[in-house]
Amino acid sequence: MNIRGGRLQKKMDEEAAKFTSSLKFDHHIFHADIKCNIAHTRMLAQEGIIDKKTAHRIIKVLEELEKEGIEALDLDPSVEDIHMAIEEYVTEKIGEEAGFMHTGKSRNDQVATDLRLALKEKIREIQKELLHFIKVLVKMAEDHKETIIVGYTHLQHAQVTTLAHHLLAYTHALKRDYERLKDTYRRVDVNPLGSGALTTTSFPINRKLTTRLLGFSDYMENSMDAVSSRDFIAETIFDLSMIATNLSRICEEIILWSSYEFHLIELADEFSSTSSIMPQKKNPDVAEIARARTANLYSNLMGVLGILKGLPYTYNRDLQEITPHLWDAMRTCYDMIRIVRRMLSTVKIDKKRGFELAVSNFATATDLADTIVKEKKIPFRTAHQIVGRLINNLISEGLSPLDVDSNLLDKVSMEIIGEKLGLDDDIIKRALDPRENVKMRNVPGGPSPRMVDASIKRLRTYIKEELKSLH
Amino acid sequence: MNIRGGRLQKKMDEEAAKFTSSLKFDHHIFHADIKCNIAHTRMLAQEGIIDKKTAHRIIKVLEELEKEGIEALDLDPSVEDIHMAIEEYVTEKIGEEAGFMHTGKSRNDQVATDLRLALKEKIREIQKELLHFIKVLVKMAEDHKETIIVGYTHLQHAQVTTLAHHLLAYTHALKRDYERLKDTYRRVDVNPLGSGALTTTSFPINRKLTTRLLGFSDYMENSMDAVSSRDFIAETIFDLSMIATNLSRICEEIILWSSYEFHLIELADEFSSTSSIMPQKKNPDVAEIARARTANLYSNLMGVLGILKGLPYTYNRDLQEITPHLWDAMRTCYDMIRIVRRMLSTVKIDKKRGFELAVSNFATATDLADTIVKEKKIPFRTAHQIVGRLINNLISEGLSPLDVDSNLLDKVSMEIIGEKLGLDDDIIKRALDPRENVKMRNVPGGPSPRMVDASIKRLRTYIKEELKSLH
Amino acid sequence: MNIRGGRLQKKMDEEAAKFTSSLKFDHHIFHADIKCNIAHTRMLAQEGIIDKKTAHRIIKVLEELEKEGIEALDLDPSVEDIHMAIEEYVTEKIGEEAGFMHTGKSRNDQVATDLRLALKEKIREIQKELLHFIKVLVKMAEDHKETIIVGYTHLQHAQVTTLAHHLLAYTHALKRDYERLKDTYRRVDVNPLGSGALTTTSFPINRKLTTRLLGFSDYMENSMDAVSSRDFIAETIFDLSMIATNLSRICEEIILWSSYEFHLIELADEFSSTSSIMPQKKNPDVAEIARARTANLYSNLMGVLGILKGLPYTYNRDLQEITPHLWDAMRTCYDMIRIVRRMLSTVKIDKKRGFELAVSNFATATDLADTIVKEKKIPFRTAHQIVGRLINNLISEGLSPLDVDSNLLDKVSMEIIGEKLGLDDDIIKRALDPRENVKMRNVPGGPSPRMVDASIKRLRTYIKEELKSLH
Amino acid sequence: MNIRGGRLQKKMDEEAAKFTSSLKFDHHIFHADIKCNIAHTRMLAQEGIIDKKTAHRIIKVLEELEKEGIEALDLDPSVEDIHMAIEEYVTEKIGEEAGFMHTGKSRNDQVATDLRLALKEKIREIQKELLHFIKVLVKMAEDHKETIIVGYTHLQHAQVTTLAHHLLAYTHALKRDYERLKDTYRRVDVNPLGSGALTTTSFPINRKLTTRLLGFSDYMENSMDAVSSRDFIAETIFDLSMIATNLSRICEEIILWSSYEFHLIELADEFSSTSSIMPQKKNPDVAEIARARTANLYSNLMGVLGILKGLPYTYNRDLQEITPHLWDAMRTCYDMIRIVRRMLSTVKIDKKRGFELAVSNFATATDLADTIVKEKKIPFRTAHQIVGRLINNLISEGLSPLDVDSNLLDKVSMEIIGEKLGLDDDIIKRALDPRENVKMRNVPGGPSPRMVDASIKRLRTYIKEELKSLH
Repeated sequence: MNIRGGRLQKKMDEEAAKFTSSLKFDHHIFHADIKCNIAHTRMLAQEGIIDKKTAHRIIKVLEELEKEGIEALDLDPSVEDIHMAIEEYVTEKIGEEAGFMHTGKSRNDQVATDLRLALKEKIREIQKELLHFIKVLVKMAEDHKETIIVGYTHLQHAQVTTLAHHLLAYTHALKRDYERLKDTYRRVDVNPLGSGALTTTSFPINRKLTTRLLGFSDYMENSMDAVSSRDFIAETIFDLSMIATNLSRICEEIILWSSYEFHLIELADEFSSTSSIMPQKKNPDVAEIARARTANLYSNLMGVLGILKGLPYTYNRDLQEITPHLWDAMRTCYDMIRIVRRMLSTVKIDKKRGFELAVSNFATATDLADTIVKEKKIPFRTAHQIVGRLINNLISEGLSPLDVDSNLLDKVSMEIIGEKLGLDDDIIKRALDPRENVKMRNVPGGPSPRMVDASIKRLRTYIKEELKSLH
Repeated sequence: MNIRGGRLQKKMDEEAAKFTSSLKFDHHIFHADIKCNIAHTRMLAQEGIIDKKTAHRIIKVLEELEKEGIEALDLDPSVEDIHMAIEEYVTEKIGEEAGFMHTGKSRNDQVATDLRLALKEKIREIQKELLHFIKVLVKMAEDHKETIIVGYTHLQHAQVTTLAHHLLAYTHALKRDYERLKDTYRRVDVNPLGSGALTTTSFPINRKLTTRLLGFSDYMENSMDAVSSRDFIAETIFDLSMIATNLSRICEEIILWSSYEFHLIELADEFSSTSSIMPQKKNPDVAEIARARTANLYSNLMGVLGILKGLPYTYNRDLQEITPHLWDAMRTCYDMIRIVRRMLSTVKIDKKRGFELAVSNFATATDLADTIVKEKKIPFRTAHQIVGRLINNLISEGLSPLDVDSNLLDKVSMEIIGEKLGLDDDIIKRALDPRENVKMRNVPGGPSPRMVDASIKRLRTYIKEELKSLH
Repeated sequence: MNIRGGRLQKKMDEEAAKFTSSLKFDHHIFHADIKCNIAHTRMLAQEGIIDKKTAHRIIKVLEELEKEGIEALDLDPSVEDIHMAIEEYVTEKIGEEAGFMHTGKSRNDQVATDLRLALKEKIREIQKELLHFIKVLVKMAEDHKETIIVGYTHLQHAQVTTLAHHLLAYTHALKRDYERLKDTYRRVDVNPLGSGALTTTSFPINRKLTTRLLGFSDYMENSMDAVSSRDFIAETIFDLSMIATNLSRICEEIILWSSYEFHLIELADEFSSTSSIMPQKKNPDVAEIARARTANLYSNLMGVLGILKGLPYTYNRDLQEITPHLWDAMRTCYDMIRIVRRMLSTVKIDKKRGFELAVSNFATATDLADTIVKEKKIPFRTAHQIVGRLINNLISEGLSPLDVDSNLLDKVSMEIIGEKLGLDDDIIKRALDPRENVKMRNVPGGPSPRMVDASIKRLRTYIKEELKSLH
Repeated sequence: MNIRGGRLQKKMDEEAAKFTSSLKFDHHIFHADIKCNIAHTRMLAQEGIIDKKTAHRIIKVLEELEKEGIEALDLDPSVEDIHMAIEEYVTEKIGEEAGFMHTGKSRNDQVATDLRLALKEKIREIQKELLHFIKVLVKMAEDHKETIIVGYTHLQHAQVTTLAHHLLAYTHALKRDYERLKDTYRRVDVNPLGSGALTTTSFPINRKLTTRLLGFSDYMENSMDAVSSRDFIAETIFDLSMIATNLSRICEEIILWSSYEFHLIELADEFSSTSSIMPQKKNPDVAEIARARTANLYSNLMGVLGILKGLPYTYNRDLQEITPHLWDAMRTCYDMIRIVRRMLSTVKIDKKRGFELAVSNFATATDLADTIVKEKKIPFRTAHQIVGRLINNLISEGLSPLDVDSNLLDKVSMEIIGEKLGLDDDIIKRALDPRENVKMRNVPGGPSPRMVDASIKRLRTYIKEELKSLH
C-alpha cells in the first residue's frame, strides 16, 4: 500500500529514504504498535465504525504478527516506518480491507501512543534496578556500621565517618532518582490515541475505551498538544542523566579508592582489566567507562532539547530524531545501574587502611575544637583557631594526632587567648579517637551506628513497599 | 574573624580571592541565611547548648541586619562569602560571643539550607506566573472558539481547527510544566541543616525543631548526602528549560504568524521594534529574544550537570559554581513567562486571514476522504489515494478546493478504483467546509466548540484549586 | 593470547566485557590498525630490533588480513578490542612469534595513531563534499542573478535582493567551514606512534621512519601528551557542528519557502513525503530531519567535552567513549551535506512569487529614504522618519508601495519637517522599483549582478585550487 | 532621536524594553563602536558622500566621547543599545546633522564590525597568556628534568617518568590551544562594514578604505552572510572551551596530588583555603573552581550553538543573545589561564615522595619485560605474562619490587615457559631502577633528560617567535 501514489508522482530518492527512515530504531515500538492497532480496531468495531468481521480478521493477523516477531516484516527503507510495515503485512494477508484499521487514526497519534506504551515498561525496569541497587547498598551498610573511614571535602580529609554512613549517602541520592522517575511516569502514562493527525477525527471514536484497553490512566486532553509534545521524553532523559550523574560520583570514588595511593578497596578481577604492555596493571575500566557514559546521557538530553527548541506546532518530522536519544539513553542508564552495582558489591574493603587514614591526618580536629567549646565555654571560632595553629605546629615538627596532649594544647592556647585550657589528656584522647568520634555523632542523619541502624530500617521498609507498588 | 589565622599563615592571593568569591551572587541567599542563623541559634538555646542570653543577643543583631539589608555588610572578596560577612557583622556588634551561633553548624550545611529556602520561594513565583499564563490563554480561547485557522504539520497546512483549540494546546504544555515544578518542590522542601560539614555534630542538636522553624516538610536523612547533593538544582533548571522550550515554540509561532506571508496576527506596537535603517519594519524582537534565551536555559542545565559529573563526595568547591546557574535560570525563565504572556495577549488576530488560509489549500481533504469511507464503505487508504490524486489534478489545473464537485471526484475515482463514487455535491461541500469540519471533530480533545468548552471548564477549576493550594 | 593470564586470575565478567568492549565501532579503524602494525613492524626490522624474517612473516599475514577484511577476525567481546583481535589473528597464523610486532608499542599509542589515520581520510571526504556543495550553489547563483526576491531580517521583509546573492551567502558560510577543517587537519596530521603506553620505550625505535611510512607530516613531541589528548577529536566535531549549523539555516529556509504562505519554492517529489492521513500534504521531511540532526552533532560535541573535562593524565578508559561520538558525527554530517545539496539543487523556484513579495510590502523603503538623503541633503534619520510615517499611512489606507507618489510623500514631509520634498515621481518610482534597486547596490558584497558575477568568479577559482590541493 | 516615531505609534513597553536591551553588556564594544563610526564617517567624507565639515564635526565629538568614556552616555533601556546611545550623544552635541554618520550603514553591519574589532584584541590577550603559561611550564620543566615521578594510566601506576616530562605534556596541549586561536583570528579579522542592513547600500561607499582604517585584513565578500553569521563567535568559544578543558585536567592533577594520599605537592597558602569548622583543612579551592568553570565554558558554547541552529537569514534579534556568552567565556577563560598558572608555579614539590611512589609499586615492570625480550629474544607477550605472574606472587607474599632477583623470576618462568631465564641480578636491578629507566627512554618524545632538553629548546624558540609575531 503506497501512500505516495496520490499526491506525489515519484518515489522518494533512495538516499533521502534512508536518511529519513526510522526503521533502524523502530524495533523498540514493534510490540507497542501492534497493541495499539489491536486496541484501536477493537474500539472501532465496538462503536460500530467498522465491520466486526473485518475487525476480527485484522486483529487475528496482528496477533499472528506479534508471535512471529519483527523479522516477519519487510523493513526496507522505502517503507518509511514500522507503522507502514505493519500495515503492509496485514494488507498482504487480508487485502485492502486492512486499511479499515486506520479509520480515525494517524501515524501522528499512533507513534506518540507507541512511545508512551514502550517507555512505561522501560521506566519500570529502571525503577526496579534502582531499588535493587539501594537494597545491595543497605546490605553492605549493615556489614560496615563499624568500619571507620575518613570522609572528604575538597578531596582533603575532613571528618571521620563509617563506610556504612557513606554508602547510605549513595542510597538517598538513588532514592530521589527513583522518585523522580515515579513522578515522570505519571506524565508518561496518558493516552494520545484518538488525536488523529492533529485535530482528532470526525468518526465517533471512544477514547475512554482505548485508554482502558491500553492500560493508560487517562487520555490526553488536547489533540494538538498530544501529537506535538515530547516533553515526556526530555523529562525521562533528564531523570536518567541525574541517575548517571549520581553513579558517576560513585565511580569516581571507586577509581580513587582503588588507586595505589588511597588503597581503600580492591576491585574484583572480574571487573578489572590489565594492560597489554604494563604487566603490573589492574585497571578500573568499568568505572571509567561508566563515568564517561554519564556525558553520553547529557548529550542525549541536549540533543532532545536542541531539537525541540522553537518547533512550531504540531507534528514536525524533527520529532522523529528525538526517539533514538530516548532508547539510547535508556540502554546506557540501565547498563550503568547494573554494572556499577555489581562492581561495587564485589570490591574487597581494606578496613585497616580505612582506620589508618582516619587516625593519621587530623580528621578528628573538629571534635577537639568542639570539646574545647563544651568544656571551656569559649566560642567555637576561637577553639577553631587554637586547633588550627596546633596542627600547623604538629606538621612542622613531624608529629601526628596521636602525639597531642594537654601540654601541647596549652602552649598554643597561651599564644592565642593568653591562658591555658587545662583539658584532661583523657578527654583529648577521646575527642581525637575515631571510634569514639563516630559514636558521638548521634544526631539524625549522622554516622553513629545507632543512627545508621535507624536509617537502614527505614530504607528496608521503603524498598519493600515500593517493590510491591511496582507489581 | 579570620578563619585563616590558624592553619594557614598567609592571606589568600587577591586574584585568587576574587576568583573564588561567591559574593557577587550571594545576595540571593541573604535573607535565607539570616533566617537559617536565627532558627539554628534559637534551637541551640532551647536545647541548652548555648546560653539563652547569648542567643538572644545574636538573634537581635540578626534581626536588625535583616532590616538594614545586605548593604550593611562588608562584601570585600577577602571575606569569602555571605556567611562570613554576616558572622563578621554580628561579631562587630556583640564581640567574640557571636561565634556561638556556629556551634554544631558548618557553612556546608548552611549554604545547602539557604539555597533550598530561597529556591522554594522562587519556585512558587514561577508556578504562579504559569497559572496566570494559563488563565490568560483560557480567556483568549473563550473568545476564539469559532475563529477558524489552519493547523500545521511540517509547517504545511494539515487540517482545519480553531484558534481556541490551538491556544488550549499551549495550556496543556504549561500545565505539565507547572506540575513538574510541583513535584520538584517536594524534593527541594527538605532540610539539610544539622548535617554540619559532612557528619553532623557531637552537639545534641534538635533537627526536628529547626526543620519546623524553617518551614521545611522534613529533614534530610543522611548528612553526607545532604551537603554534597545538588540534584535539586539540576532538576529545577531542567523544569525551567522545559518551560522555556514550550515558550520558544509559542514564540516561533508568533514570529511566523506575524510575518507578511502568514499575516495571521499583528503584534502590539509596545512589543515590537523597528529598524534604524528600514523605515517599514515592525519586528518581533521580544519573541526572538525569548526564543534565543531558551538556549541560555539549556546552557545553564549543561553547566550544572557538567560540574556535578564525577565529583567525589562530599562537598567540593565546584558546587559553588552551580548556584549562579540557578539564579540566572530562574531570572531568565521568570522574565520569559511574563513577557511572552503579555506579548501574546496583546496581539491583534486577523480572523479573515485565518479563514482564508483554512479554505484555500485543501486542509479539509482528510474529511473528504473520511466522508468517502463513511458513505461508500471503502478502506481509508483507497479514499486517501483518490483524494490525493484529485488534489494533484486541481493544483495542476489551477483550481481550488471550492471547485470540487461530484464530477471531478468521479473522474479520479474511475482512474483508481474503476468506478464512480456518486457522492452528492452537498455532502462534498460539507466535508470541505471548514466550519462544518471543525464542528464534526467532536471527540474529546478535539476542536469542536463543545469540546473546547468542556476543556475550558476543567482548566478553570484546575487553576482555581491550584492557586488556592499555593497560598 | 590472553593478556589477563599474568596479573589477573579470573576472566572478565561477561556483562562487564560487553560494557567495556569497543568492538562495535572498531571497524572504523580496522584498515588503519593494520597499516599501523605494518609500518611499526617494518621499522622494527629496519632498525634491527626484531628479526627481519619474523617481520616479513608478520607483515605478510597482516596484508592477507587486509584483503580478507574484518570478517576474518574473531570479534567476541572477551577479545576487548580490534588490536587484540588482530594480534590473535596473526598469532593463530604464525604462532607466538606474532608477539614481536608489539615490541616497543602499546595499545595506547596505537589507538591514537589509528584514529588519526582514519580521521584524516574522513576529513578529506567532508572537505570534498563541501566544495561540491559550493560549486552547485555557484552554478545556481549563475542562473539566478536576476531573480528578484525579498531579503529578510527578523523574518520580516527587509530589502530587495536576488536569489543569486542569497545563495552566495550560503557559499561563504560553507567556505569558512571548509577552511576550519583544513586548519584542523594540520592538527590531526601528526603521529603519536612510538609514544608507547605513555613514556615511549627503551627500544631504539625510529619515529621519523614510521611517521614517513604512515604519511604523517610530523610526529608528536611529547609521549604523555600523545596518548592522552583527544582535542583533535573535539575540534573536528566542533567543525562538523558548525557545518551542520549552517546547513540547518538553509533547511529552515527551505521549510519556510516551501510553505503555502511563502510559496517561493517547490520541493522535488523525490525529496518530499506525504501524509498517511492527509492526502493533500507534501512535506519537507528531509529538511526537517537535517535540521534536527544538527542538534545531534551538538550532542556529540557535548559528549566529548563532558568526557574530557577533569581527566587526569595520561590514558584513561573514558577516552574510548569519545570515539563513537566522532564516527557518529562524521556520518551524520557527511549525510547532511550531501542530502541538503541534492534537495536544494532540485527545488523549483517560483520567480513570479519572488518578485511579487519584493514589490508588495515596502522592501524598498530604505532606498526611498536614501534617495531623499541624496536628493535633498537631509540627514538619514529624518528621511527614515518620513518614510516610516508614509508607510504607516499607506497601510492604514490599504494602499501599496506602487501607489506612492510625490503628493503622498510631501504630505508626510510637511508633517514632520514642515516642508515639501518635491521629488520627481520618476525618481520615486525608481527608488521603489526592485530591479533598479538591486542594480544600484553595486558595492562589493552587494546584490548587483555585476558584484555577484565578480564573486562567482572568485569562488570558481577558489574551488578549482582547493580541489587540486586535496589530491 | 527616536527611530520609532515613524512606523510605530507607541513606545516600547518598559518590561519589553528591559527584556530586549543589550545595554548591560554593550560596554564591551563601546570603543569599537566609536572607532567604527569614525572610520565610516571619514570614508563617507573622502568619497564625497557627505560634507567634509559635517564629517569633521561628527568625528570630533566621537573623539571627545571616547575620552569621556561610556559614563558620558545615557544608558536607559529605552535607548535600546550602544549604537543608539552614541548617536544620541552626537545628536545632542551637534544636532540633526549627526544623522549623516549613518549614511549607508546599519546597526546590523555595525554591530558585527564592533564585535570583531573588540574580539580581535581579546584573542590576542588570551594568546599572550597562553604563551606566558607555556614559558612558566618550560622553566619548571628545566628545574625538574631529574625529578622522578610515576606516570599514571587509569589513575593506576603505569611507568616511571620525570616531572619535567609531565609538565611538557601540558605545554603541548596549550600550544595547540594557542594555534587554534591563531587560526580563528584569521576568520575574525575580516570586515563586515559596508554590508548595511543586509544588501549593502546604494551609496558609493569604499569598503577597502574602511577595511584599512579599521585594521582588518580584508572585507567580507557577501553582505547577507556578513550580517547574519556568528560562526566566528562559536569558533572562538570552542577554542576557549578547549583551553579550559586542558586546564581542568591540570587542576584535577593539582587536586589529586595535593591530597593526603598522593602528597606529591603542597599548595601555597595564598592559593588555598581552610574550613570554617575543620581547623586542619587546607583546601585546593582555586583548582576546584577552575575545574568547575570549564563546564561554564561548555555551557556558553552550547548556548551559542543552540541559538544559531535553524535561524533563517539574515539578521535575527536572537543573535544579540550570543554576545554575552562570548564576553562571559572570554573573561572566564582569561581568569582561568592566569590563576592556574600562578597556582601551579607556586606549589612545593615533594621530590622524595615522587621517588617513593615510583619505586614501590612495580611501575618499572614493563622494562623488566622489555629486558627479557632483549636478552632472551622471546616474544613480548610471553615476557609480559611472566612479569605479570611474578608481580602477583610478590603482592600476595607482601614483597616489593626491590626484592626481585633472578631466583624469583626463574621460578615463574619455569611455570610459564618451562625454562629458566637466567638473567643477571644486575640486569634485573637496572631494569627496575627508576632513574636508569627514565634515561633509557631516550626516544623523541620520551622522558630522558636529553630528550626533554631538546624539547625545551624547541619550545623556547617557538615562544620567542610567537611573542614577536603578536606585536
